[in-house]
Amino acid sequence: MSSTILHGIIGYTITPFGSDGTLDLPALGRSIERLLAGGVHAIAPLGSTGEGAYLSDPEWDAVVEFSLKTIAGRVPTIVSVSDLTTARTVRRARFAERLGATAVMVLPVSYWKLNEAEILAHYRAVGEAIGIPVMLYNNPGTSGTDLPVELILRIVNEVENVTMVKESTGDIQRMHRLRLLSDGQVAFYNGCNPLALEALVAGAKGWCTAAPNLIPEHNRALYEAVQEGRMEDARESFYRQLAVLDYITRRGLPTTIKAGLRMTGLEVGVPRLPLQELDGDGQRYLQGLLTALQ
Amino acid sequence: MSSTILHGIIGYTITPFGSDGTLDLPALGRSIERLLAGGVHAIAPLGSTGEGAYLSDPEWDAVVEFSLKTIAGRVPTIVSVSDLTTARTVRRARFAERLGATAVMVLPVSYWKLNEAEILAHYRAVGEAIGIPVMLYNNPGTSGTDLPVELILRIVNEVENVTMVKESTGDIQRMHRLRLLSDGQVAFYNGCNPLALEALVAGAKGWCTAAPNLIPEHNRALYEAVQEGRMEDARESFYRQLAVLDYITRRGLPTTIKAGLRMTGLEVGVPRLPLQELDGDGQRYLQGLLTALQ
Amino acid sequence: MSSTILHGIIGYTITPFGSDGTLDLPALGRSIERLLAGGVHAIAPLGSTGEGAYLSDPEWDAVVEFSLKTIAGRVPTIVSVSDLTTARTVRRARFAERLGATAVMVLPVSYWKLNEAEILAHYRAVGEAIGIPVMLYNNPGTSGTDLPVELILRIVNEVENVTMVKESTGDIQRMHRLRLLSDGQVAFYNGCNPLALEALVAGAKGWCTAAPNLIPEHNRALYEAVQEGRMEDARESFYRQLAVLDYITRRGLPTTIKAGLRMTGLEVGVPRLPLQELDGDGQRYLQGLLTALQ
Amino acid sequence: MSSTILHGIIGYTITPFGSDGTLDLPALGRSIERLLAGGVHAIAPLGSTGEGAYLSDPEWDAVVEFSLKTIAGRVPTIVSVSDLTTARTVRRARFAERLGATAVMVLPVSYWKLNEAEILAHYRAVGEAIGIPVMLYNNPGTSGTDLPVELILRIVNEVENVTMVKESTGDIQRMHRLRLLSDGQVAFYNGCNPLALEALVAGAKGWCTAAPNLIPEHNRALYEAVQEGRMEDARESFYRQLAVLDYITRRGLPTTIKAGLRMTGLEVGVPRLPLQELDGDGQRYLQGLLTALQ
Repeated sequence: MSSTILHGIIGYTITPFGSDGTLDLPALGRSIERLLAGGVHAIAPLGSTGEGAYLSDPEWDAVVEFSLKTIAGRVPTIVSVSDLTTARTVRRARFAERLGATAVMVLPVSYWKLNEAEILAHYRAVGEAIGIPVMLYNNPGTSGTDLPVELILRIVNEVENVTMVKESTGDIQRMHRLRLLSDGQVAFYNGCNPLALEALVAGAKGWCTAAPNLIPEHNRALYEAVQEGRMEDARESFYRQLAVLDYITRRGLPTTIKAGLRMTGLEVGVPRLPLQELDGDGQRYLQGLLTALQ
Repeated sequence: MSSTILHGIIGYTITPFGSDGTLDLPALGRSIERLLAGGVHAIAPLGSTGEGAYLSDPEWDAVVEFSLKTIAGRVPTIVSVSDLTTARTVRRARFAERLGATAVMVLPVSYWKLNEAEILAHYRAVGEAIGIPVMLYNNPGTSGTDLPVELILRIVNEVENVTMVKESTGDIQRMHRLRLLSDGQVAFYNGCNPLALEALVAGAKGWCTAAPNLIPEHNRALYEAVQEGRMEDARESFYRQLAVLDYITRRGLPTTIKAGLRMTGLEVGVPRLPLQELDGDGQRYLQGLLTALQ
Repeated sequence: MSSTILHGIIGYTITPFGSDGTLDLPALGRSIERLLAGGVHAIAPLGSTGEGAYLSDPEWDAVVEFSLKTIAGRVPTIVSVSDLTTARTVRRARFAERLGATAVMVLPVSYWKLNEAEILAHYRAVGEAIGIPVMLYNNPGTSGTDLPVELILRIVNEVENVTMVKESTGDIQRMHRLRLLSDGQVAFYNGCNPLALEALVAGAKGWCTAAPNLIPEHNRALYEAVQEGRMEDARESFYRQLAVLDYITRRGLPTTIKAGLRMTGLEVGVPRLPLQELDGDGQRYLQGLLTALQ
Repeated sequence: MSSTILHGIIGYTITPFGSDGTLDLPALGRSIERLLAGGVHAIAPLGSTGEGAYLSDPEWDAVVEFSLKTIAGRVPTIVSVSDLTTARTVRRARFAERLGATAVMVLPVSYWKLNEAEILAHYRAVGEAIGIPVMLYNNPGTSGTDLPVELILRIVNEVENVTMVKESTGDIQRMHRLRLLSDGQVAFYNGCNPLALEALVAGAKGWCTAAPNLIPEHNRALYEAVQEGRMEDARESFYRQLAVLDYITRRGLPTTIKAGLRMTGLEVGVPRLPLQELDGDGQRYLQGLLTALQ
C-alpha cells in the first residue's frame, strides 16, 4: 500500500458558483488545470476549501465526478468525504472510490461531541466500506473534535486502510508525538499553512493546502528546498510567502482563494452564504500580498 | 410582541428511530405527551437533542410537521431551524412558521468560522424571511462559533424579531452582561443545565432543557421556587437534581435521554451513528441517579 | 472547630505607602477602621489586595502586627501567608498565629508548576505547623496553579485544620462540585466579585472581597438579602453594584481600591511598581461608578 | 552592540543545596565546569532552572557572584534578574552588571497581571539602570503574563538595550511574527526545549536550555546541524533527544536536572520545598532515557 501514499504539495480545489448560485463546472475545470499547471503533486477535491459542507448531495456528487474526470489520473486524488452521519460518510466514500479516487479524507465532523469509541467506530465503518486508503484528518478548528495522538494511532492500528494522518491543529508537537510513538511508521501531512516550513522539516510527507491556487511556484519551492536539504533557501522561501499563508488561513480559504483567483483572471464566483465574498479592504490587502510575491 | 416571549421550562424533544433506523413518529407522539404531562411551559422540537443535524430534509420536515400537529397549541413551540447555509436555514424557518410554530431558534452553525458581518447577515436573512420571533442561540460547544455579548446585542437591535437569547456557554457573566448592557431589556434563557439555579436567579426568563423528558417535576420545582423567591427550596431542589443535569449534559443529550426514556418504559430507539447508544456502565449510572431522585 | 468558621463579608485590607514608598501604618489604621465601620464580618489582612507579594519580610511582619493590634479582636481575622517556599510560608503562618490571627489563608503560589504530591505536602506542612484553621485558596489567575476539586477535597480530608476553601476561578461549577462531593460538609467562600450573587445562592459561607473598602453597605445588603431569602432584593442589589465589582476585579484590586479610597478622602498612596496608580481615564470611570451608587 | 548578541547553546545552571538546605557552592562550581566541558556557547546563571525565585537575597547574590567568578569570562554570561518589584529587579540587574555579566534576562513576573504600560515601564526602568544588554523573556507558563509580539517589539524599539527576545510559549508562530514584523532585525531565542529543531530552522539565534547539564553533545549536534544546513542530521538528532527534552520540560527542570546530575555522579542535592525531588518512577524513567542516548 505504500505505493499509494501521497506526498508533496496536495492542492485543494475550490467549488465555483455562477451568479445564480449554481455550480459552475467549466470554471472548476479551469481551476483544476491551473493547479496541474502549477505542478501540484496531488489534488484534493472538495475539502474544506471546496465548501463541501455547503453543497447538496447531488451537487457534491457532481463536483466529485467532474473533478475526477478532469484530473483523469494525471496526479493522485484524495476526496474529502466527511459528513455528519456515518451512513452519509460511507456513501460518499464509496462514491469517490467507484469514480476512481486514489484515497479519501475523513474528518470526524459531528454536531455532538463524539467519544473515542464513536470516533473509532466511525473510521472503522468508512475504512471497511472501501478498498482505497483513508487519510484521517484532525482539525478541531472546523470539526470541534480534537483527536489526541494516542487515539489517532489506535485508529491507524485498528483500521487497516487508515494509512495517512493530516494534522491541522498547528501544534508541531502533535507531529513529533506521531513520529515518536509510531517509530516513524505513520505518514503525516501538514494541514496548517503557516506551519509548512516546520512541518516539512519535522518529517511531514506532504502539505495539504489551497495556496497553490494562487502561488504554486512558492509552495513547490519551499517543499523542494526542504526535500533537498537547502535549509537557507527553505527559510527564505517560507518567510517570503508567509504573509499570504497567514492571511488566507486566518480570513478563510473559500473566501480568499476565490477572491485571489478572480484577481488573476479566473472567475469562480463567491462563496455560498453565510460565507461572504472578500470585502474591499480584504481584496486590496490580498492583492498587495500577491503583487509583492511576483 | 412581548406576549409571545417564552418563559419557564422549555422542553426539548428527542427524535425516535425504529430498529431499522427510520423515524418512529408514534414514539415521538408519546414522548411529546410525556413532556406535556410533565408540565413544561413550552416545547422545542428538533433542537440539538432532537438530532436535527443528522436528519435528511424530508425527515426533518416530517418531524416538525408531526410535532406541531401533536402539540396542537397546547403550549408555545419553538423550532430549531439551524442549518449550514443561510438558504437552507431560511427554508426551514419558513416551513416552521407556515406550520404554526410560535418561534424559531437559530444557532450560527457553520463549517468555516463566520465573521461578525456574516453572522449578522445570516440572522437578518432569517429574521426578514419570517414574521415570528427568533431566539438567537449561542453555543460555541456545538457551533464552534462564540458570539460575544456585544454582537448579540447588535443583532437584537438590528433585526427586529430577534427578541430572545439562549446562552449555553455556561458562563454566568454572559448573562450579567446581557442584562447590564441592555438595561434588562433583552430576554435571556439558560441553555446550560448545570447552571440552571444561578441563571434563573440572575434573571433568565426560562430554561431550555431536555431534562423534562426524565425528571420534569424536579425541573419545574426549581423554576417555581426561584419564581416565588423560596431560595432555600431552590437550592435544595437544584442540588438534588444536579448529578442528573451534569451527567446528561456531559455525556450527550440524545444518548442519555433516549437511554433514560427506555428505562422508564418508553422505547425511542438509539441515536443515529456516529452517535452510539449509552453503554452498560452508563446505563447503570444513569439508572442509579434516576432511582435516587424518586 | 466549627465555631471558628468564618462567614459573611470578609474584607481585604490594602497596604498604604507614603510618598517615599515606605509603609504608612497610620493610613492602614484608618482604612481598617473604615472596614469595621462598614460592617464587615471579618478582615483579611495582606491578601492579594494588600500587595503582600511585593513587601519585604520586615514590612510584611510589621503590617500583620499592626493590623491585628488595630483590629483587636473586634471581628475575626484571616491572614494570607502564602510565599514561594514552604519554609517561608510556615514562618509567616506561625507568625500570624502567634500574633492572634483567627485563621490563615494559603494560596499554592510557586514559580514552577507543582504536582499534586507537592501541593498536598505544602498544605500539610503549613497545617501541622499551626493550631488555627487554614483556608485553602484556589486562584489560578494569580498563582498559576489550578487545584481540581478532587485535590482540594483530598487536602481537606488529610490535613485536619484545612477547613475552608476559597474559590476564585469564577466557575460556579467548582462550588457545585465541592458541595456535591463533600455532601455539603466543606465550607466554601467566594473570591470572585462578579460571581457574588450566584456563589451565595449556591451556598457559599462568605464572600472574600476588597469591595467593602469602597461600597460596604452594598456588599452587606447583597449578603443579607441572600441570607434572608429575599431573592428579588438580592438580584437588584447585585446588578446595582456589578459594574463596580467587575471593574475593580478586572483592572486590579490594589490599583483601583487605592484610587477609590483617595476619592473618598482617605489617602493611602499608590501601589508599588511595577503596579502603577490608576490613570486619569480609569479614575474618571471609577468615580462615575461610585457616584452612581450613592 | 551586535558583538554582544549571544548565540548557540545557552546553558542554564542549577543551584545545588547541601543536605541541610543551604547553598552548596562547590557543587555549583563542578556543575559549571561540566557545562563548559560540554561546549555550551554561553551560560545563564540563576534562570528558572536555578530556583532563583526560591532564594533569599543574600543567597541569590552569593550564587551570582560565585557563578561569574567561576565562569571567568570563558563564555558569555546572562543572569536572570527577574523579581516581583521593579526596584528589586533593578537592584539585581545592577548587581549582575557590576560583577561582570554579559547581559541580563528579565521575565515580567508579577503577582497581579500587569497592563502594557506597566510592563513597558518595568523594562524601561531596568534597561536604563544598566549598560549591558537585556534579553526580554516571554514565558506565560511561569510568569502568568503573556506578552504579545506587538508589545515585545514596542519594548525593543523603545528601550535601547533590550536587544534579545527569548520566546518560551512553544508557539512557533510567535517567532514567525517577531521575524516578519521586525524585518528580521530582532534576535530571538528558543526557550521551549521540544521546539528546538523548528525554532532554529525558523531563525532563532540560540537555544536557552538546561538540557546541556545532561546531554550537551546532543544539544550541540542539533544546533550545529542546523547551522551547517544538514537537515537530515538535524531531524535525526532532534528526534533522538526529544524524549529527554519533553520529559525534563514537562516534569520540571530543577527536579529532573538535579536527579539527572546525581545519576551521572554529580551530587547537587534536591530542589527546595515545595518542589520535591524526582520520585522513584521518575528516576527510573529518566535513567532509561539517558541510557538510551549513550
